[in-house]
Amino acid sequence: MTMASEFGFNPHDDLNDLRMSEAATPLYDHVKRFIKETVEPMQAEWVKLGEVPHDRWQFAPGQLEVLEVAKNKAKAEGLWNFFLPDAESGVGLKNLDYAYIAAELGKAPMASEVMNCAAPDTGNMEVLERVGTPEQKKKWLEPLMNGEIRSAYAMTEPDVASSDAKNIATSAVLDGDEWVINGEKYYISGAGDPRCKIMITMVRTSPDAVPNKQQSQILVPTDTPGVKILGPMHVFGQDHAPRGHMHIKFDNVRVPASNMLLGEGRGFEISQVRLGPGRIHHCMRTIGKAEAALDLMLKRGVSRKAFGQKIAYLGGNLEIISRARIDIEAMRLMVLKAAKAMDVLGNREARIWVSMVKAMVPERVCEIIDQAMQIHGATGISHWSPLSEMYTDVRHLRFADGPDEVHHMVVGRNEVRRYENSPADDITPAVVWRN
Amino acid sequence: MTMASEFGFNPHDDLNDLRMSEAATPLYDHVKRFIKETVEPMQAEWVKLGEVPHDRWQFAPGQLEVLEVAKNKAKAEGLWNFFLPDAESGVGLKNLDYAYIAAELGKAPMASEVMNCAAPDTGNMEVLERVGTPEQKKKWLEPLMNGEIRSAYAMTEPDVASSDAKNIATSAVLDGDEWVINGEKYYISGAGDPRCKIMITMVRTSPDAVPNKQQSQILVPTDTPGVKILGPMHVFGQDHAPRGHMHIKFDNVRVPASNMLLGEGRGFEISQVRLGPGRIHHCMRTIGKAEAALDLMLKRGVSRKAFGQKIAYLGGNLEIISRARIDIEAMRLMVLKAAKAMDVLGNREARIWVSMVKAMVPERVCEIIDQAMQIHGATGISHWSPLSEMYTDVRHLRFADGPDEVHHMVVGRNEVRRYENSPADDITPAVVWRN
Amino acid sequence: MTMASEFGFNPHDDLNDLRMSEAATPLYDHVKRFIKETVEPMQAEWVKLGEVPHDRWQFAPGQLEVLEVAKNKAKAEGLWNFFLPDAESGVGLKNLDYAYIAAELGKAPMASEVMNCAAPDTGNMEVLERVGTPEQKKKWLEPLMNGEIRSAYAMTEPDVASSDAKNIATSAVLDGDEWVINGEKYYISGAGDPRCKIMITMVRTSPDAVPNKQQSQILVPTDTPGVKILGPMHVFGQDHAPRGHMHIKFDNVRVPASNMLLGEGRGFEISQVRLGPGRIHHCMRTIGKAEAALDLMLKRGVSRKAFGQKIAYLGGNLEIISRARIDIEAMRLMVLKAAKAMDVLGNREARIWVSMVKAMVPERVCEIIDQAMQIHGATGISHWSPLSEMYTDVRHLRFADGPDEVHHMVVGRNEVRRYENSPADDITPAVVWRN
Amino acid sequence: MTMASEFGFNPHDDLNDLRMSEAATPLYDHVKRFIKETVEPMQAEWVKLGEVPHDRWQFAPGQLEVLEVAKNKAKAEGLWNFFLPDAESGVGLKNLDYAYIAAELGKAPMASEVMNCAAPDTGNMEVLERVGTPEQKKKWLEPLMNGEIRSAYAMTEPDVASSDAKNIATSAVLDGDEWVINGEKYYISGAGDPRCKIMITMVRTSPDAVPNKQQSQILVPTDTPGVKILGPMHVFGQDHAPRGHMHIKFDNVRVPASNMLLGEGRGFEISQVRLGPGRIHHCMRTIGKAEAALDLMLKRGVSRKAFGQKIAYLGGNLEIISRARIDIEAMRLMVLKAAKAMDVLGNREARIWVSMVKAMVPERVCEIIDQAMQIHGATGISHWSPLSEMYTDVRHLRFADGPDEVHHMVVGRNEVRRYENSPADDITPAVVWRN
Repeated sequence: MTMASEFGFNPHDDLNDLRMSEAATPLYDHVKRFIKETVEPMQAEWVKLGEVPHDRWQFAPGQLEVLEVAKNKAKAEGLWNFFLPDAESGVGLKNLDYAYIAAELGKAPMASEVMNCAAPDTGNMEVLERVGTPEQKKKWLEPLMNGEIRSAYAMTEPDVASSDAKNIATSAVLDGDEWVINGEKYYISGAGDPRCKIMITMVRTSPDAVPNKQQSQILVPTDTPGVKILGPMHVFGQDHAPRGHMHIKFDNVRVPASNMLLGEGRGFEISQVRLGPGRIHHCMRTIGKAEAALDLMLKRGVSRKAFGQKIAYLGGNLEIISRARIDIEAMRLMVLKAAKAMDVLGNREARIWVSMVKAMVPERVCEIIDQAMQIHGATGISHWSPLSEMYTDVRHLRFADGPDEVHHMVVGRNEVRRYENSPADDITPAVVWRN
Repeated sequence: MTMASEFGFNPHDDLNDLRMSEAATPLYDHVKRFIKETVEPMQAEWVKLGEVPHDRWQFAPGQLEVLEVAKNKAKAEGLWNFFLPDAESGVGLKNLDYAYIAAELGKAPMASEVMNCAAPDTGNMEVLERVGTPEQKKKWLEPLMNGEIRSAYAMTEPDVASSDAKNIATSAVLDGDEWVINGEKYYISGAGDPRCKIMITMVRTSPDAVPNKQQSQILVPTDTPGVKILGPMHVFGQDHAPRGHMHIKFDNVRVPASNMLLGEGRGFEISQVRLGPGRIHHCMRTIGKAEAALDLMLKRGVSRKAFGQKIAYLGGNLEIISRARIDIEAMRLMVLKAAKAMDVLGNREARIWVSMVKAMVPERVCEIIDQAMQIHGATGISHWSPLSEMYTDVRHLRFADGPDEVHHMVVGRNEVRRYENSPADDITPAVVWRN
Repeated sequence: MTMASEFGFNPHDDLNDLRMSEAATPLYDHVKRFIKETVEPMQAEWVKLGEVPHDRWQFAPGQLEVLEVAKNKAKAEGLWNFFLPDAESGVGLKNLDYAYIAAELGKAPMASEVMNCAAPDTGNMEVLERVGTPEQKKKWLEPLMNGEIRSAYAMTEPDVASSDAKNIATSAVLDGDEWVINGEKYYISGAGDPRCKIMITMVRTSPDAVPNKQQSQILVPTDTPGVKILGPMHVFGQDHAPRGHMHIKFDNVRVPASNMLLGEGRGFEISQVRLGPGRIHHCMRTIGKAEAALDLMLKRGVSRKAFGQKIAYLGGNLEIISRARIDIEAMRLMVLKAAKAMDVLGNREARIWVSMVKAMVPERVCEIIDQAMQIHGATGISHWSPLSEMYTDVRHLRFADGPDEVHHMVVGRNEVRRYENSPADDITPAVVWRN
Repeated sequence: MTMASEFGFNPHDDLNDLRMSEAATPLYDHVKRFIKETVEPMQAEWVKLGEVPHDRWQFAPGQLEVLEVAKNKAKAEGLWNFFLPDAESGVGLKNLDYAYIAAELGKAPMASEVMNCAAPDTGNMEVLERVGTPEQKKKWLEPLMNGEIRSAYAMTEPDVASSDAKNIATSAVLDGDEWVINGEKYYISGAGDPRCKIMITMVRTSPDAVPNKQQSQILVPTDTPGVKILGPMHVFGQDHAPRGHMHIKFDNVRVPASNMLLGEGRGFEISQVRLGPGRIHHCMRTIGKAEAALDLMLKRGVSRKAFGQKIAYLGGNLEIISRARIDIEAMRLMVLKAAKAMDVLGNREARIWVSMVKAMVPERVCEIIDQAMQIHGATGISHWSPLSEMYTDVRHLRFADGPDEVHHMVVGRNEVRRYENSPADDITPAVVWRN
């Protein structure tokens, strides 16, 4: 059977070595220990402090202090900024190594922030590190790397289907040595955080250029006049104050021409830098969440009885558990492979792998969490269980960085195009086939 | 969050190195070349020879001759019996290496037989090699290794749910120095083949022993008096003559006591030898079939139009293609991981991985083949396409070596038991969780 | 082919006449008009009034007033209490007629309450009407029928799997002429409402009786000493203040012996009264929600473009829309059939039909709403769209009145038992079958 | 919430009265009795007669004789041609009545033929009865109505995607008073039957007309010179000899101009006549097959044990059974509704309902049969069970009369168009929604 070349299939090469590097092992063990010994107790305290009545759009008294203590501890122990792959300024972790660690971060909600590895700062730091000017780095990358400020990424717009990024409509017009920005963005995560000082903002600067050269990315300090926070967007009814997912109006916002990143019309180019690892980090952490959901499903399944049996053994529950385990292992391997592909092939060549895991993981993990909820009964959707929060968080990922459908389109087209480009006789199915 | 230890998750060790070994690379390339240059032309000739009217329960005139030519060529080139993992008498391929090669075998129906790597001979040879006496090896293993005879494995019975092997009812009673066997077996694949000379037969020898010591495995030559072939079982209406899946009655069949394998009551022990690699070989080959089905789906998708578009772009087809690609890659990695687990941990420790892929792969590949049929229109279920034969073949795997449900039970129980054995506070879900 | 009698299949009888009665037609049309002209404007005002800062566990100033105006209008127009099937005190609507109307109620969140047809009052009124003593009716049914008070149904407990109602552990012990109640209940919907005055409470009165005679239902006024509201349970992070889903401790709560409903040990008997129509009302309204979700999906699909096409035509969206329409029609017919079955056969005989729709509808409607969210992009999970609230509402129904799994168990067992009770030759599959 | 008008939803009208008519009741009961008393024994004999070696492309000696005896009995008892809806020459059954009866026919493979209600004769007779000239009726309709001959419908072509009927390429050119036909058709079911005398053939007569006026339907006697049967198409490896699904070449086939049906260019118009009831008849019978599959699943489930339990109670099997029952009832109601829609609204207006059941039923019934096979173990795919034949039969329906995808396209577009034609403010989603 003559087949157009199979996708990504080469048994010989390093793509299939999914072992964590030896160099990363101490860090991995250290992170796990640090989460257990430092992050989880800190988080319990954080939650308790949050129960005191206070302005919801500020952190509760004492919260930032306990966070800073933990951050300083992380920094002192060298557990800091290790998300940056292969960079001079970072630890130089491979994406593959980071994938293993990120699964651990996914199990403890505040772990990423304590070790300065939280989105969207990670993507923003990566962009600044790769394309920022010395001045831009000095002013924004440095305090971000130090964990002194936080940042946001302003891309999605309410009025257009921004899954097709060519639709982005917020305009930036050069007026003298300033860009004047007008438009509306929403779901700008973290922009409500009092510590958020800078937004990387996607704007249309060049409406007359070819479609993928019309967009630019530009630095907008959050305190620039004209930046108006219209309110928080909700996710399944929650506003996640005080960080929030803000709805922002840019009303004649003026920033210096030097705030432009990389250059006018190069917005999509920057997206390539950001979206590879950024997209996969979510998926890595989501593996950790799936593991946590299965853990809860099992704990409930063995500790409660109905109709004379432990719930785990009732009806089809054992098969639900089995399918969850199987799919978690399959997704873990796919995430590791995509991470390795970025290490070996680079972000551009690895983009199909990234789209594969982006389309695969959040959808299936939503189902696993949903099944865990069902096994819990009503408690599963209550505040006594983390499951509903895990669910809405992962459900939201099915839109973030492109909805599932766009990633399936990318993967499907890649398959089809290999065949469209094949000579005709390669696509003539062989008639002969007998067992 | 305290979690009972996660299943199989250790980033440091070799389990995650899924690269084919360097030593196996020349063999892999050789096999691919041999399939293209020798097996596929031979198979075309075989099919043509089969069109001549002839006794369906014999091979058509000339068929065995062309097959022997190809087998001799394979033997001469060293492409022979390489399925045997780590054995002195075999090439010593790792299961992982074999997994890569088996995916290739899965794409060409006769490739396995030409290279003496076809089921059920492979499992039978493995059993004989591991537990056979020198006499048993001399008499049966040698001609099997030489490709001079073929064999069958007689386990499944029509009258009991043999998915629960403890139900096996065919009895063997020692009478002097002979075992006298009575009972019925069915779906004994390959037992119709005129070249099939020996059957490894699962019998109940010790009804009074504890449940997993009641069964034995014994060698029964097919020409023993009392072995009555009642007829061929069909698979979706096909009898696969002349090899067939035979329905056999054992009517006072007498074999010498020395035909017992390993010892009375040790039938399940032997199953452990056989079922690890044997089960996974099917899955490995099935990956190749899935790849072939996707190949056909794409060829049809780009070469035919309806409603003004290539079919590949119509409706949800691009997403169907994407999901097929994603799941093939995920299944491939899972099969490789299970193979590696057998190499590193041994068959016993790897059995959960084996059950995971056994439950995962045939079910999903059936769907992929079904979707390929749908994209072909009626041609997809016709003899102009291999798809319906591929479908029934893989559908049948959902029963072979244990139905999906039994494997899910194995995987699910393994999860649950880890928690049942945990101290109580390890299974108390943490209440605190905030994003 | 001899078949054990098919379930529920009789073409001749009235079960298959799913037309609304002529008598109910004016009411149906009136309700639709009233929703559009009165309920929807009232609801808009209610929402606006609610935006004023106020104690979340009280209604906002003015809210109850506008609600009362609408309720009085409904009462004046005869749109009041029509949920009561075939009762002297009610309009005497058939369940089938009510099913049509309830689908309309399901589209407008406050419609049920305005017309005094809201859960759990409906079920509670039905129970009181059927089994209440004249005194009980006077004291509680009358004000409920007048819409002067509201009520709750206290059944679910946090510490046991109450899907198996035999697990209910809250105890009631007779002490003189008072029952003394101790235990914990949770997810007591509406118990936070300042107007909620009475709870029908499931208690274990007779631990030594046979399992289905141990439980009783008893009236507990919410202001009885010892009734302690521990706090609101959340549903996907929302507390639905001020009505809430309350967590309640019963701490030596004493109520007069005359508060017992029907008699000691007859709790399950009362459940039969309540659960038939009550369960199906949810499903009826859920059909309306599914219709609303599809409506939103289509509005978004035709009003927004991406990749050069209206979203409705992108990828597999047209098929998603088709499957939603098909399944909505199938679910609607099933709900109507179950309602008709209650009318014709009575609640007891109709219980399999009720379980069928209870297991079918919420699960599938969750999917439809989820798909509508996906087509909306991030807006779909925001407060700009009702979809996430619809989702959590319907998701919660997959637990309410028994989780899906319990209803599948009921339906499956009913099938199996028909065969277990058949003579052996009725269950011998025929071998002969040829096309 | 303003909604564009809901599809097909009107509680008041007769569409929702799904009762069989009283007039049809005796016929329904008679058919059931006749199947049990006459068809099933005849069929057993037919199968036995078929076991004698004979030319596979002829019926076995004696087969046609026993069939004729049964047919004459049916005719004598008035169980004949009752498929014809509302026709003067038929019994005048409503489609709804026929739907109930067809479900019974679906359970016994030969029942339809014995009562002269078998496809494709039914569709062909309906077409002839509606559009045939007196001569055409005399020559072909009469013997078909008498059960003296059989017929075929030649539409599908191997070289084009005939799911889009505008692709049909077989040409007919008028030469004097004869049409000269050239082209290839395949999957012409029943054309191998020695009794098949006439084919209604879809041809392209008018390539220059507007797309839906290019096709015509024409009568082609099977013995016309130039009609060359190239061979039988297989369905999952079976050729269904002697009736077969034939591959036919039309090689300068000449038929008189008077063989044209209705008129040149009116082929699609005729399809409207045929495809309504024809499509739905398949679905009606398929409900019977689903019922038969569930029956087998249950018989196996209660009569066999594994792991100490009846299979019906193992793992998720009870839920599988429940879902099968629920979906069978839902599909049954949908089929009845579509049949009623044809009765009340006419075929044209009812076409969306027809597409809904055509897209819904075969897909889901394939799954139910597949699950029944799985519960049977290997026996489920053998010739000891009818399941695999039922499976391939229903699988084939997912292509026949348009693949599922085309019907989903029809249903989806109908939804979307209602909204595209709505004024803009009708498609503005309301923002206000609160529970």
